This record gives sequence, C-alpha cells and structure tokens, in this order.
Amino acid sequence: MLSRYFPILRWGRSYSGSFFAEDALAAVIVTIMLIPQSLAYAMIAGLPPQAGLYASMAPLIAYAIFGTSNTLAVGPVAIVSLMTASAVGRIVETGTPDYVAAAAMLAVITGLILLALGLARLGFLANFLSHPIIAGFITASGILIAASQMKHILGVEAHGDNLFAIVQSLRDHITQTNPATFAIGAASILFLFATRSYLKRLLRAVGLKDRLAASIAKAGPLLAVIGATAIVAALNLEARGVAIVGDIPRGLPPVGIPQYDAGLWIDLAGAAFLIAIIGYVESVSVAQTLAAKRRERINLDQELIGLGTSNLAAGVSGGFPVTGGFARSVVNFDAGARTPAAGAFTAIGIAFAALFLTPLLYYLPQATLAATIIVAVLSLVNVRIIRETWAYSKSDFAAMAITIGGVFFFGVEIGVVAGVAMSILLLLYRASRPHSAIVGQVPDTEHFRNINRHDVITSPSVVSLRMDGNLFFANARVLEDRLLALAADAPAVKHIVLMCSAVNEIDTSALESLEAINERLKDAGVTFHLSEVKGPVMDRLKKTHFLDHLTGNVFLSQYEAMRSLDPETFHLSKGLPDS
Amino acid sequence: MLSRYFPILRWGRSYSGSFFAEDALAAVIVTIMLIPQSLAYAMIAGLPPQAGLYASMAPLIAYAIFGTSNTLAVGPVAIVSLMTASAVGRIVETGTPDYVAAAAMLAVITGLILLALGLARLGFLANFLSHPIIAGFITASGILIAASQMKHILGVEAHGDNLFAIVQSLRDHITQTNPATFAIGAASILFLFATRSYLKRLLRAVGLKDRLAASIAKAGPLLAVIGATAIVAALNLEARGVAIVGDIPRGLPPVGIPQYDAGLWIDLAGAAFLIAIIGYVESVSVAQTLAAKRRERINLDQELIGLGTSNLAAGVSGGFPVTGGFARSVVNFDAGARTPAAGAFTAIGIAFAALFLTPLLYYLPQATLAATIIVAVLSLVNVRIIRETWAYSKSDFAAMAITIGGVFFFGVEIGVVAGVAMSILLLLYRASRPHSAIVGQVPDTEHFRNINRHDVITSPSVVSLRMDGNLFFANARVLEDRLLALAADAPAVKHIVLMCSAVNEIDTSALESLEAINERLKDAGVTFHLSEVKGPVMDRLKKTHFLDHLTGNVFLSQYEAMRSLDPETFHLSKGLPDS
Repeated sequence: MLSRYFPILRWGRSYSGSFFAEDALAAVIVTIMLIPQSLAYAMIAGLPPQAGLYASMAPLIAYAIFGTSNTLAVGPVAIVSLMTASAVGRIVETGTPDYVAAAAMLAVITGLILLALGLARLGFLANFLSHPIIAGFITASGILIAASQMKHILGVEAHGDNLFAIVQSLRDHITQTNPATFAIGAASILFLFATRSYLKRLLRAVGLKDRLAASIAKAGPLLAVIGATAIVAALNLEARGVAIVGDIPRGLPPVGIPQYDAGLWIDLAGAAFLIAIIGYVESVSVAQTLAAKRRERINLDQELIGLGTSNLAAGVSGGFPVTGGFARSVVNFDAGARTPAAGAFTAIGIAFAALFLTPLLYYLPQATLAATIIVAVLSLVNVRIIRETWAYSKSDFAAMAITIGGVFFFGVEIGVVAGVAMSILLLLYRASRPHSAIVGQVPDTEHFRNINRHDVITSPSVVSLRMDGNLFFANARVLEDRLLALAADAPAVKHIVLMCSAVNEIDTSALESLEAINERLKDAGVTFHLSEVKGPVMDRLKKTHFLDHLTGNVFLSQYEAMRSLDPETFHLSKGLPDS
Repeated sequence: MLSRYFPILRWGRSYSGSFFAEDALAAVIVTIMLIPQSLAYAMIAGLPPQAGLYASMAPLIAYAIFGTSNTLAVGPVAIVSLMTASAVGRIVETGTPDYVAAAAMLAVITGLILLALGLARLGFLANFLSHPIIAGFITASGILIAASQMKHILGVEAHGDNLFAIVQSLRDHITQTNPATFAIGAASILFLFATRSYLKRLLRAVGLKDRLAASIAKAGPLLAVIGATAIVAALNLEARGVAIVGDIPRGLPPVGIPQYDAGLWIDLAGAAFLIAIIGYVESVSVAQTLAAKRRERINLDQELIGLGTSNLAAGVSGGFPVTGGFARSVVNFDAGARTPAAGAFTAIGIAFAALFLTPLLYYLPQATLAATIIVAVLSLVNVRIIRETWAYSKSDFAAMAITIGGVFFFGVEIGVVAGVAMSILLLLYRASRPHSAIVGQVPDTEHFRNINRHDVITSPSVVSLRMDGNLFFANARVLEDRLLALAADAPAVKHIVLMCSAVNEIDTSALESLEAINERLKDAGVTFHLSEVKGPVMDRLKKTHFLDHLTGNVFLSQYEAMRSLDPETFHLSKGLPDS
C-alpha cells in the first residue's frame, strides 16, 4: 500500500551495484546535456540562469521518490518555460525579484494541482487534450519560442506575447542589430544545424562506432557553448555589446515557500492548471513510449503525484514549473538508465556544477543559448502531422488550426483553451447526429439491414429504426425527431420498432426522450416497441416506469419483433418455392 | 426554397374560412389568459406592465410568419423573464428608463443569436442542455421566482438575486408587512389553488360538460384579477398601502431600435446566449409534444429563425425576451388553433386590450399578480423527476444537483453554466473509461466472448481485446494503457488482436494512439493485429500510413484471426470427440 504512493520502496529494495553503475553513467551524460539546457530554458521563462539550475535539482530527487518511470528525465522544458513566461509576465514585470518569486509560486500551485488530480484520480481530465490539439500546440509554441529568441540573436530589445507582436517588434528594432552579437548568434545556429545534420555521419566516416558517434553528435550544444564562451572571453566581445550570462551565484538553491500573495495565487491558478495538464500529457507520452520498449509500465495516477511533488520541490527551491522532457529522457534511456535513481544522480551532477562550474559560464553569450533553443524547438515543428490530420479528419484539423491560430494571435493559454473548446463542440456535434438506419429483412434470413444499402423486405405498417450508438443527452433530441418523423411521414404506420443492438447505455435524457416518444406516438395512434435491448441496459430500464408505460413490447430479437407485428410480410420461406 | 424560410407561404396558400373560425376562437381564449400573464411576467422581469403587453404583440406576428408550429403560443414566459431580470438587473438600476431599454436590447441580441444559430444550422448546441439540467433548472427557477414574488404578497421591499439573499431579505423586512396587501395576496393564492384543484370538479358536479368545465377552471387567474381589482377599487385599499398596477399608457408599442451602447452589448451577450438556448429548448419541447399529437412536424432549424425574429420584434417594439410558453400553447392547442395565424389573432386581441382595456387594470393589486405567478411557477417544481433521476443515474443526478445548487446560491446563469460544465465533464469521464473485454473462444464455435463472463478458450501467446465503443480522444490514452498492459503483464504474449466489431469511428487521436501502440508493441517483440474492422473505418485507415506500419494483419473475422495466429488452441472440433 505504502509502495503505491512511494514507488521507490519497490525498486529501491532490489537496487544493486550493477544498477548503480548504469544509472551513474546515464546521469553523467544527462548532466552534460542539462547544464546548457537549464540555462536556456530559464532564459525562455524570463528568469536568471541560476533558476534553471535550481529547477534541475530538487524536482529530480522528488521524482526519483514518487515517479513510476525508470527513465523519465524531469526538469525545465521549452514549452512549459514559455507558458511560465506568459503567465508570470502578464502580472509581474520581468527582471524583478517579484518575477522570480511568482515563477516559483507558479510551480507550487502547479504541483498542488497535479497532486490533487492524482489523489482524486482525475487524470482523465488530460483526455480533453486530443492529439491534434497537442500537436498543433507544440508546433505553434515551437515557432513562438523561436521567434521570441530572435532578439538575443540580433542583440536588440523586442517584446510581445503573441507571434505578430514579436515579429513586429523585431522589425521595428532590426536596424539596431549588434553586429558582434549577430555574428556569434548566426555562427552558433549554423554550427548547431551542422553538428545535428552532419557530425554523426562524419564521425562514423572516420571510423567511430554508431553509438559513440550519436552521443558525441548530441553534445553539439555543449561544444557550441564552450567554443562561444572561449571566443567571447578571448576577443573581449563583451565590450562590443555582446550580452553574456555573467555572474551566476554559486551554491545550492535557497529553500523556502515563495512569498505569499493571495491575489497572485488566484491570478496564476488558471495558468497553473494548463501547465499541469500540458506538462502531464507531454511527460506521460514520453514515459509510456520508453517504458514500452522494455515492457515496463507506468502508473498514470501515480505519475500525477510524481510530477506534482517535482513541481512543489521546484517551487520551494527557487525554481519554476518542470515536467518530463522528451530529448533528455531519450538520452537517459539510450545511456542505459535502469531506475529513477539516475535522476537523483543527475541532480547531484547539477549541484556540483552549481557549486563549482558557474564561473566558467561567465562569458557564455546569450546569443549562443538562444541559438541552442531555436535549433531545439524548430525540431518540434511538425508540418507532416498537420498535413496528415487534414487528410484524415477535417474536424480534427479544425481543432488543430484553431489551437495554432490561437497561440499565434492570442498566446499559449488562449490557444489551448480555444482548441479544447472546439474539440468538445465538435464531439457534441458528431454525437448529435448519430448514425441510424431504417432496416428491413434480408429475404429468407433473420437478418435486418439498412434499407438504403441492401435489397430488403419492408412493411407499410411496421417500420424499424436501428440506432448505431449510445442514447444520451447529445442525441436524445435527434432520436425524438427521427422517430416522430417516421410516424408523421407515413400515415399507414401502426408500429415503430427501435432496434437497440448497438446501444450500450441510455442516460436520463434519452430515457425521458423515449418516454416522450412513447407518449407522442400513442397520441398519434402508433405503438412503440424495442428490440435487442442488451442485458445491462434492460436491467436499468426495469428500475423505471418506462416499461409500464410502453405501449408495445420489448422483443429479444429483431426478427421476433417484426415477425409478430406483421407475420404476412416478415417470415422465412423455409425452403418453399414462391407461390 | 423561399417557403423554407417563410413557412407562412406554405400554410397561407391553403388557408380557409373554417381555419379562420377555429384560429380566431383559440385566439380569444389565449388572449384572455395572456392579459394577466403578460402583466405578471413583466413584473418578474422588473419592467412596467405595458412591457408585457408589448412583448405579446409583434413577437406573435413574427412567429406566425417564420415559425413552423401550428399551435405554439409565443410571448413572455416566467423563466425567461427571471433570466431577463437577472441579466439586466446586474448592470442597470431597476425602475429606470435605461432598464427598459436594456431589456429591449437584450431581446434584440437574443434574437440575433437565435437567427445566427438558425442560419448556420447550429441548433445542436441546444443538446448541451441535458434533460436533468433542464429539469433541475426549471425546478430551481420556479422556487426562485416564487420566493422573489413573496415581497409583493407581503407588501415589503426585498432584494437579492439568489435564493438565500431573497429569503434573508424577506426575513429582515417581515415585520413591515402591510396587512391589507397580505390579506389580498393570501386570499388570491388560496383562491387560485382552490380553482385549480376543485373548480373543474365542482363545475362538472353541477352538470357542466368536461371541456367547458376545464376551460372555465383555467380562467381562475382572470377571475382573481377581476375580483381583486373590484375589491381594491371598492374599499379604496390603495390608501391603506396596497400597491396597484396604476396607470398603464394606452396605445400600441413604440417602434425603434433600443438605445445603443457598445458596452451593454458585450455585457448582455452571455446572458442573451443562455436565454436563447434555454428559450429554444423549452419552446421546441412544447412544440414537438403538440405537433406529435396531430402527426405534424416542426423544423428544428427553422424554429431558431422563428424565435429569433420573434425576439427581434420584441426588442424593437418595447418588449423583452420571449419564447414559446408551455401552458398557453396547450390552451391554444386545446382551443383548436389550426395554424400560426392563431398567434397573429392573439396579437390583435392584445392590441385591443392595450388600446382600450388598460384603464380597467388601474386598481389591479400587484399582490394578486404575484399570487398568479406563485401558483403558476410552483407547478414547475418537480420533485418526482429529481427522485427518479437519483434512482436511475447518479451521474445525471450530480449534474442536476449542481444546476439546482448553482441557481439557488449564485443565480440562474451560473447555475445553468455549472450544470452544463458538469455534464460535459461526466460525459468525458464516462467516455474515458470505455467498456472493453479480453475475449476467448466459446468452445466449438466461431464466437468470442468476455473471458470474465463465459467459459472460453484462451491462449498464452495470443490475447485479444474487444473495445465496446468508438475510439477517440477521450479514450485514446486508456486504449494505449490497456493494450500495453496486456504485453507488460504477460511476457509470453506474442500477438495482440484488437477486436473492432463495435468501433464505428477512429479519430486522429486514436489513430495516433494505434500507431504508438504498434510501435511500442514492436519494441516489446509483440505483433499487433486488428479484426472485424467495419467498412467505413477501414476506408479511412487505408488513406493513412497506419496499415503500412502495422506489424500484424487486419483480419476480416475474429475467428480467422485467432485461428491463424494459434491454430493449436483455436479450432472447431468438427464434432470429433476429445482425444
């Protein structure tokens, strides 16, 4: 029982030396990747660089205790950092101590929401985010992040929380571009694209093994950071206006509850909810993908608790909202991480960097960090999936397009809310026009099929409608409309049979509609019958008065119903010739 | 084509003298009922009495031109009047000319929304209002209206836009009760309950025919109004503090667009949307009930246009939002109305009253009007349906309870929005846990059934899951979870077959989940197959790359699938004895 909420009790018991060796190696590789990433994501979030390091320590240890994935690498990620900047930037001025405190508080609220969802087992709320909405959201956010980082490449001031404001602001300031900054930024971007595209191939060509070549190619950002830092320091480019990271306070994160302000809590709650859900969905999809490769499982409810405690830990240790990151988790997996302990070891690596390595990052140019971000997020942009969604489903495409347009024009939060609203509307729209068919008898069989698709026998006095789906509030009115139309359009009809073979549930709305239909058909002189009602549905109907009021009968089979209502029309010829 | 948008062109062509006689008789009866009702509903809406008369003229003529129900009686109704008071009272002070203009503007906006929904064929939005929500809303609103009218019975000042505020305000003022007013009010309530319960029986006992007795019993409110007016005038009760209707301006309504104020439009838009939807749902349900009795049909999209033009007409002629009323429509039907012309004739009757009868209403006590309202709305309170919903479906009951609580604590708008949000949440919750079953072979047959319910044959290397419902975003993640669990929990499994016999649709989210499942099972060394995929679903899958990537096959029948994957386990013994 206790190990349900503390998975560490399960895997910790069988922890061995060989696990330790593998976890530690993976942790070293992930740490090297995470140092520049954590600084870069802090920059996206509008926070000082140390916030990125802080968000990469305590949360990883919390996840190691409470998380269920053996390979998920928790920490700051690009999209959640963008959402943090959007939420906090709206109510506090960037660059102030209040901004730092508000970002930490956002992490606390996000953590509490995730914990509450986990304890109440409300993870199903994440289902509101359909795949097309997530894909559209990620693509649009990637473009938005890339655009927002262009100011660092150009070395200009530019603002805006939607794509068009950012682009316009960049255009207004482009004449003030700093040449040295632009040279560093553009060179970094080219270098990063080159290492990503060609380095692995080059290393293999000179004889390195596949795996090693791939690992070194992934170190492109680290090489760019080292090279750019050396160049800036050697050529004293700071004096030529190149913005550098500068002093990062050495040491471990300050621990404490961020300054409390009741007004802020409420202003941040909506954003925290969206960050919680989006972070959860992203994280779970990575964790499931990796778990499946080793036939492991993750627990969806416990993941809420794992990510919740991680965010709480981030918030009380000077960080900002975190979640499981895709690229780092894949590296962690490939590097051979066996248990969540790898994450804890990564936290130790980052703590080492925070204690001893920050002076080395003094001359790191912001333009190079921005370049690592741009190259990373542009890989999130997925045009293929947009095209494929268009081809497969126009309504899913509509939800996706509204999400993308919302993010571009109004920012991340409105984008995702508009997408969710659209997909609920479309769901209800589809549910409100369920498929149904008037059925007739396939000659000489007990089968009844759609009269529009098959050559079947029908009767002028008995008609039967088959509803292909559950009967519930979204289609209750349509059910009334279709059944009453059968009576209104054909005055000779005496009996209507509703064929329920595909009905697994009848909710209160549909039950009342059936009662209304029964009453109205009675007024019109038509008897109303049901056929092929499933067992569980029948059990619930028996608890109501519906069956007492029903003018007709409930038949076990469709054939039995039609045969007893119009034996002259519906029968089996029993092999006799027509006569 | 033209007659689709102008139904009057259809029925008008065959209009005859006998229709005229029947419509005119019905109109006289409805007019007699409508005069006190229109004054009372104006009082609920917080408007002067003439606004009720105005809202009973132009809208009826508009509906006669654009509506599709032959018997629907459009005009002011209790619940929409309450919603009007709630929406307008929040932004304009009651009793001012601005209040009257804002109520008219609310009708214009409501009309434009209904028209837009009708022209865009978005009537399905009304499906968001499930029956339990409507029932809860009507019951709660009835109680709220009755409570809000108690101040007129007591002759005190009392305010509040939710039940508890109203009750508290009444309690604070109860010592100021005006004895004469209370005597009139209490007597009116007793008289109305008595006529409703006993008058019909009494009249029949003294020899009147059923129909006539019922009609006279319905005239209870008119008798109460006449009697109370006479008593107040005769005893000069006005001098003893009895509030009377007083001067009603004689004449036809002023025509013109209500004063425009851009800020007001936006403040009123949300309320107008709710009034539009709730009014539409109420109206359509009455119209369908009555149409079915004569095997007539109404057109759901055109009804939006009919009610939209009615509200526009109300707004530009000094009225307030209107819809089809239940009680009046039933009287109209029973009195023999044959075409929408009956409504137009009723409008003429009300115009006659506005021109010539208003002086007679001078001494009508407000307490008597309040009594007619209280007796009418208490019949809306339906405890039986609350009890039955509790018995039939706990989740529908939850939506109903939240609606009722919301109306009581926070007012009508929040009540209905909370109910809708709750039912969407519950819908998604149910959809996120679809029924599924692992199936095995019923011995010696080609049937495969749930292994938990039937004694069936299973294989250690091949498992098959049947999903009982469409695959879409709400259950895509659960689908992944369940299928991956099959592989993770049983290491001997080599093949997984997803049985799709109950799947009518696979949306983009579910398609991507199937692709992810396929990839992950491949990583785990498990082959993924589908069986019994329906034709239309297969057609759409063929447009994607899914079938190219699928590691296994798509089998036409479940038996064929299982038989070819594990012929030793799954076969027909063909009548041979076990050996």
